[in-house]
Amino acid sequence: MRVLIPLFDRFTALDAVGPYEVLSRLPGAQVTFVASAVGPCRTDTGSLAIVADASFEDADTGDILVVPGGPGSRAAATDVSLLEWVRRIAAGSTWTTSVCTGADVLGAAGLLRGLEATTHWSATERLASYGATYSARRVVVQGKVVTAAGVSAGIDMALMLAGLVAGEDIAKAIQLAIEYDPQPPFDSGSLSKASADTVELVRRVIAARKP
Amino acid sequence: MRVLIPLFDRFTALDAVGPYEVLSRLPGAQVTFVASAVGPCRTDTGSLAIVADASFEDADTGDILVVPGGPGSRAAATDVSLLEWVRRIAAGSTWTTSVCTGADVLGAAGLLRGLEATTHWSATERLASYGATYSARRVVVQGKVVTAAGVSAGIDMALMLAGLVAGEDIAKAIQLAIEYDPQPPFDSGSLSKASADTVELVRRVIAARKP
Repeated sequence: MRVLIPLFDRFTALDAVGPYEVLSRLPGAQVTFVASAVGPCRTDTGSLAIVADASFEDADTGDILVVPGGPGSRAAATDVSLLEWVRRIAAGSTWTTSVCTGADVLGAAGLLRGLEATTHWSATERLASYGATYSARRVVVQGKVVTAAGVSAGIDMALMLAGLVAGEDIAKAIQLAIEYDPQPPFDSGSLSKASADTVELVRRVIAARKP
Repeated sequence: MRVLIPLFDRFTALDAVGPYEVLSRLPGAQVTFVASAVGPCRTDTGSLAIVADASFEDADTGDILVVPGGPGSRAAATDVSLLEWVRRIAAGSTWTTSVCTGADVLGAAGLLRGLEATTHWSATERLASYGATYSARRVVVQGKVVTAAGVSAGIDMALMLAGLVAGEDIAKAIQLAIEYDPQPPFDSGSLSKASADTVELVRRVIAARKP
């Protein structure tokens, strides 16, 4: 079971590391972080770099593709070498997935056309430009294409995938191993639950970001 | 607001990246990953390396210290240079925290003596050897010392800290930004919820690991 996670400039760390933490625990799984070149790849904050251990040339087949999102996703969605690699891996994968605005990359690669999909709540309107229809579910499964909502939703998606790939007993063991019994101290984690002021505050922060 | 996250060989990625993803979004926060030497530091699986951007000598003060855990925590708890650094940072910090078996490091540094604390559910019996008393809560606050349960509990801990440091409005905005509205597909995330078979399976996996 080979899991490939592509990295690009200004990705969001948890989008990638949430699924990694779950899927790397599947029996026989080998997770590889991939980028245009081997070496450190910086997240959106600039204060964290994850090492890509393989280049796109090195990693030519995978069973599970997980594309993270982040503020860099729109630039990534115009990176021809990344899109070609994503299409090549997706052609042979068992599961092709994205977390958060990683959906921009799947969409730009033409892989969401005609499908329901999700992404970060602030970026849902972009899905139509890829021929996809937004679904408000946290994880959206369409055949072998699975999209997850923003950032932390990748953990839920990966646990669901773990169940499909290795069975519920293994998935439940992974959930216990990472003690995933969430107890958020607030109830503000989705557009439908957060206050209007909270939504406005986050929209302002996102709008002020470099595109 | 300076956040320091020490890394060591065979740490667990999500222990560090969960709190990073929350705390890096605090207004004015600067997160720095620190290790004995600048450069990549490998996680427990071997398939992920995070770059330490500062050495222990480079990073001599911090407001929030977050010590991750992982299978390497027991070796880390015997690393004199790490323990000295942790004690030095903790002496000047506003918050001294651990996630998962990062409690081994705080404990070995003498920082849990006389306190209630938590850690990964599989490692609770070690707390007594540090003079601490195990508490089954997901996040345990004792003055400025905060310990979180296994792996994913660091996200909940960091959101709670964000509320204490910057106020609930900011913490709720961060929760929305990372769309943290958890919907685990199973209900097997704690010792009290998982089946006996699931617990036994995870205990066997942990017991088979290199100490």
